Amino acid sequence: MNLVTNNKWIGQRTIRPDGMDKVTGRAQFAADTTMPGMIWGKVLRSPHPHARIKSIDTSKAEKLPGVKAVVTARDIVDFPIEKGAVMLGIQDMRWMCRNVMARDKALFPGHPIAAVAATTEAIAAEACELIEVDYEVLPWSIEIDDAILPGAPILHEFNKFDGKPSNIVGRLEHKKGDIAEGFKKADVVIERTFTTRPVHQGYIEPHACLISVAPDGKTTIWSSSQGQFMVRAMTAYLTGIPQSDIRAIPAEIGGGFGGKTIVYLEPLATLLAKKSGRPVKMVMTREEVMRATGPTSGSKSTVKIGATKDGKIVAAHGTFYLQAGAFPGSPIRGAAGCSFTPYDIPNLLSEGFDVCSNRSKVAAYRAPGAPIGAYAVECVMDEVAEALKMDPLDFRLKNAAKEGTKAAHGPVFPRIGYIETVEAAKASPHYAAPLGDGHGKPRGRGVASGFWFNAGGESSAQVNITEDGNVVVTTGHPDIGGSRAGIANICAELLGIDYRRVSVIIGDTQTVGFSNLTGGSRVLFASSMVVTQSTEKIIQTLRERAAKIWEIDPEAVKWENGAAHPVSPNAGQFEPLTLEELAEKAPAMGGPIGAGVQLNTTGADGGFGTHVCDVEVDVDLGIARVIRYTAVQDVGRAIHPGYVEGQLQGGVAQGIGWALNEEYIYTREGKVDNPGFLDYRMPVCSDLPMIDCIMVEIPNPKHPQGVKGVGEVPLVPVMAAVANAIYNALGKRFYALPMSPPKVLEVLEAPTREAAE
Amino acid sequence: MNLVTNNKWIGQRTIRPDGMDKVTGRAQFAADTTMPGMIWGKVLRSPHPHARIKSIDTSKAEKLPGVKAVVTARDIVDFPIEKGAVMLGIQDMRWMCRNVMARDKALFPGHPIAAVAATTEAIAAEACELIEVDYEVLPWSIEIDDAILPGAPILHEFNKFDGKPSNIVGRLEHKKGDIAEGFKKADVVIERTFTTRPVHQGYIEPHACLISVAPDGKTTIWSSSQGQFMVRAMTAYLTGIPQSDIRAIPAEIGGGFGGKTIVYLEPLATLLAKKSGRPVKMVMTREEVMRATGPTSGSKSTVKIGATKDGKIVAAHGTFYLQAGAFPGSPIRGAAGCSFTPYDIPNLLSEGFDVCSNRSKVAAYRAPGAPIGAYAVECVMDEVAEALKMDPLDFRLKNAAKEGTKAAHGPVFPRIGYIETVEAAKASPHYAAPLGDGHGKPRGRGVASGFWFNAGGESSAQVNITEDGNVVVTTGHPDIGGSRAGIANICAELLGIDYRRVSVIIGDTQTVGFSNLTGGSRVLFASSMVVTQSTEKIIQTLRERAAKIWEIDPEAVKWENGAAHPVSPNAGQFEPLTLEELAEKAPAMGGPIGAGVQLNTTGADGGFGTHVCDVEVDVDLGIARVIRYTAVQDVGRAIHPGYVEGQLQGGVAQGIGWALNEEYIYTREGKVDNPGFLDYRMPVCSDLPMIDCIMVEIPNPKHPQGVKGVGEVPLVPVMAAVANAIYNALGKRFYALPMSPPKVLEVLEAPTREAAE
Repeated sequence: MNLVTNNKWIGQRTIRPDGMDKVTGRAQFAADTTMPGMIWGKVLRSPHPHARIKSIDTSKAEKLPGVKAVVTARDIVDFPIEKGAVMLGIQDMRWMCRNVMARDKALFPGHPIAAVAATTEAIAAEACELIEVDYEVLPWSIEIDDAILPGAPILHEFNKFDGKPSNIVGRLEHKKGDIAEGFKKADVVIERTFTTRPVHQGYIEPHACLISVAPDGKTTIWSSSQGQFMVRAMTAYLTGIPQSDIRAIPAEIGGGFGGKTIVYLEPLATLLAKKSGRPVKMVMTREEVMRATGPTSGSKSTVKIGATKDGKIVAAHGTFYLQAGAFPGSPIRGAAGCSFTPYDIPNLLSEGFDVCSNRSKVAAYRAPGAPIGAYAVECVMDEVAEALKMDPLDFRLKNAAKEGTKAAHGPVFPRIGYIETVEAAKASPHYAAPLGDGHGKPRGRGVASGFWFNAGGESSAQVNITEDGNVVVTTGHPDIGGSRAGIANICAELLGIDYRRVSVIIGDTQTVGFSNLTGGSRVLFASSMVVTQSTEKIIQTLRERAAKIWEIDPEAVKWENGAAHPVSPNAGQFEPLTLEELAEKAPAMGGPIGAGVQLNTTGADGGFGTHVCDVEVDVDLGIARVIRYTAVQDVGRAIHPGYVEGQLQGGVAQGIGWALNEEYIYTREGKVDNPGFLDYRMPVCSDLPMIDCIMVEIPNPKHPQGVKGVGEVPLVPVMAAVANAIYNALGKRFYALPMSPPKVLEVLEAPTREAAE
Repeated sequence: MNLVTNNKWIGQRTIRPDGMDKVTGRAQFAADTTMPGMIWGKVLRSPHPHARIKSIDTSKAEKLPGVKAVVTARDIVDFPIEKGAVMLGIQDMRWMCRNVMARDKALFPGHPIAAVAATTEAIAAEACELIEVDYEVLPWSIEIDDAILPGAPILHEFNKFDGKPSNIVGRLEHKKGDIAEGFKKADVVIERTFTTRPVHQGYIEPHACLISVAPDGKTTIWSSSQGQFMVRAMTAYLTGIPQSDIRAIPAEIGGGFGGKTIVYLEPLATLLAKKSGRPVKMVMTREEVMRATGPTSGSKSTVKIGATKDGKIVAAHGTFYLQAGAFPGSPIRGAAGCSFTPYDIPNLLSEGFDVCSNRSKVAAYRAPGAPIGAYAVECVMDEVAEALKMDPLDFRLKNAAKEGTKAAHGPVFPRIGYIETVEAAKASPHYAAPLGDGHGKPRGRGVASGFWFNAGGESSAQVNITEDGNVVVTTGHPDIGGSRAGIANICAELLGIDYRRVSVIIGDTQTVGFSNLTGGSRVLFASSMVVTQSTEKIIQTLRERAAKIWEIDPEAVKWENGAAHPVSPNAGQFEPLTLEELAEKAPAMGGPIGAGVQLNTTGADGGFGTHVCDVEVDVDLGIARVIRYTAVQDVGRAIHPGYVEGQLQGGVAQGIGWALNEEYIYTREGKVDNPGFLDYRMPVCSDLPMIDCIMVEIPNPKHPQGVKGVGEVPLVPVMAAVANAIYNALGKRFYALPMSPPKVLEVLEAPTREAAE
């Protein structure tokens, strides 16, 4: 272990490398890119939730003046469904090739049917209308209850569950002990069922790309994504172009939150560019984003927890049904695997069910599945604590997972900081403060905890010393959470120089080694590992070169404060040799100074958070408003505290939206009825209080700087914390999200708690 | 030594990676780049050859609507002249900062005085006219004889030669033995004086750049150059921006030939972009290129060679005066250092003099200085051979340098191929063929040899294996001579895969390690060294991973035909593991597969060529026409023979232009009078015969594939070969270039050979 201590830059709120570009509008997002001769692509989308495509006639569209190319599923490489999974990262290419464009069936309204490239966007849109599609409209379902009914319309006939065609396309369970025996020992048992609605990640920047394909197939992609290598790989698979011929260049990204870990436009634009011989630009409208890109699952969960009188949980059972959308693959692993993890429960069964229905395929959303599961578990925890007459934080402390606890999903925990987050919440000014006077509006306080796995995985870095003795670091991950700032702090710390002398660049696929996508809260964890190893190699080179100049042993040279020094006066009396001086001497001493490392990183153990939320409810209007919020989290080591706090605050803001307002509303025809930010109500600044953050730092012993992923945990506890606070305010439990004004009024008017289910 | 034998791709004329882009117009040159909000920069240039700048008033220009920024020398970092050399690569920054923009004096017509950025090019040009400059016009000189006269106007007063202010700003000599003693032993001594005129490199693409500077100084440069790192470094030095904040992106380059090893526009555009807050584009007109960018020197050389009756050279003396232009630094090292190098001469004195005068600062041009020196030496060699009644190739063979010969400029030759080039020329069908009937137009044949140092230096490479088992190679040099094609051949050869699976990319300054500029015929030599070492590291990784899978020792695994195999049946019975298979398994076996190497390469020993030229002269019109030409060269190993031949043919074409037509013509006011391709007459296709190439392959023992630089040698012998052929046709010697129609007529009409001097 090589923890850096007495840090100068690690832990500092250094100036963001991307800040100036972003506030001055200079940052280039995907839609900002243009090319001479560029034309525009548009997608024709299915109006039906479920329909067999009997034929597509593109001839009229092709004849429209200005139209340069039309593509359909025929142009996309087919991965036969029956042959089983062809996984690429988290994506199964069998579904991917059908999600990007409908093949035999349209499976949701908005499912791409064909794409057109024309000299203007208007012509491309007009051409889409000229495409004649013969649909056989089929019955459909969206809600989980409908999709798993016997006789429900089946999306994928070949899929069997219990031996019969089914929309249940996956199941997993985590098991520990014997829950039947466990529940027998319980003095208190609470079982509740909860539902959540699909919510969108809500990134500001719609999906966009500009793609150029040379006649020899050499392809350049500019796009906004969470992984240029993901874009390259998926585009290669779906178009048949070798990866070595595709250069995927990452634009600055205007938000992703998991929703940009998948391609929608890139394969279509590549095929259109190839056919037309012209660069093709495609930019989704907000409506397309809302209708056809992956939000997260809606869900139905049942959670049962039993505890003894003294507050010890003896058994728990969770059943989590998650919508996958049109193709298999909902985040049941996050829901079933994370929800009970903060607790040491001797008898546990946690089951997840993956359910297809006729809505857009879900995509990852910040700790995918975990907030859904935690919402149910943490609400029931609140009820059990209440029944036991225990402080809800004390109840959690009593059952808290710690070093040595075996989690139901497998690992035995190393040193973790869950208990510290609960203790910090308990000791916080917020938890001690009175709720204050709502002037007639009831107020309440709720707490909840949450866990997320965090990921490691492949990262590559290259660190080069410039001729003037400064530093350029290249890594391969889009920066959506401050990785450039964090890496600059770490690299400057290791080299002992001012952080402004370190430039951090996001390389494209052809100029940096393979780097897995930005997701799983992995980027600073993994990329700082490879940057650290690269920088250490450079320091070794610098020591060797100084040793050569001084004619002493490299072991007699140390690197400190940006310069080589003799380790002791015994090693010799020499003036320090600075990085600038050694850079200047580089040509004569073997050449340029630089080093690169590529790794599949491990050791990203999970992260925990505990939140405290105060609400005030306007009982006349049904408006619940969060008035104070404190997010406590074990952040490992806060390399750049400002960014860490930003992650905590951003996660909480999204959770408050999910809890109180956000939801997909469907028409009777099965179409999304609120595909825009006016009708799909995300919280804005004026809806939220300042969100306080308490960073508990328990360094990750498996990381050179103690880094833990911090980006996803903060969303996990939020909906439960808000729901528990509303209960505390109103004395009524809510079992469905969002707790929006009409739903709040409905519960307030209901005679019993069951009405709210 | 690790010479690859039985090659599949090395030595093949594989399809050029850049070919499709270039023939379809898709290749992006510097002027093809645009940015939103972009404005245009223009340069105000001095009308005077020599003038003190008393004041510059930019106020009227600044007030013109549409003008966004004006810069003068005040904005550029000053390197005090008196403080001595501040070298950056081959450039002294004292001169560079004054060449980019005049500081106290304008030193040539075209010297930048100020630069303007405005919303249109027209407004920028109009604003330049509104800048008021108060000049004190000074006397000037352009020709060497004028510049070294006592009382000549001195460009740089502080410079002393023989204790007095002088325009002679440098001298070097190479000395061996004692020439006075040597000449005493000679039976034949010939001494002649030659002059050459300044000629331009003649690249098709004018200098151009687009530069964006963020408010925090982060700078992006798109430009066409022979070195993105050179652009970064010079721009950093002249603007004060740290190198780590400048990303210099190389555009495809439309010709350089040495002329793009220096910056003209980039520092100005950077300062304009910084001042205006807008991206600034600058594109030179052809006229600006011809007036204000570096052509090569005009020269005056005197060469004396003495030989014994049996054909042995006993002494030689060369004196080479070269124009530097407005600032010190002409290629006297190439002239004095290369000219006698093909020969083993016991007593030798070779002197070079660097002379400033009021013309644009010279820049490198293909084997800088060497063709100027070789022209004089090889013409005198022809006269000596004639006096000795020896075949000129036999005379050269008799005196040829070979392994063990000590060159006057220092090195003792390793195994070189000079003799082989002379023998191959002698044995060529061309040399054996009769001259044929000119139908009244006299025909003649001439030969000449030439040498160029070749360079090694810093190169960096990164080789990455894609997830689908293909290869991406990134290097840091603009490709002007086929380096991408050569690297693809070598990398495919080493990995045993089809060359089309290797993509070769030119990285920008922030995504690849430091790589010195494309010049000195160094790029394939140096970059293939680092690519070879990187690829060997990858093969080692692949062997280790296969060994791990097979559970055998890595030493028991060999890499062949794109797959790992057990070295022998004894090592185990295993199916080969292909690159694709090992790439697929990479995540589970330690991570991505890639390796990078950064080196200061050495071992690029010089190269030799021998040329045979036939001319036919229209004595009425004075037009000499080359009707057959054969270039023989020791090319080390021809990695991509098509490109090597292209280099030979291109060099010869440029030499024929230099010999017969090209020259800067000056007005009485000291301005270039022919600044365009209509009046500056470069040879076009119809002026030239097919140029035959004979590639002699003597592999360079210091390079893993035997590579030698090949790009510059082919220009060195040409002017002498043409001059000797014209003498052979007409019986009259020419001592001045170009041998253009008026000059030919003048010599034909002169009574004695002296008239031509």
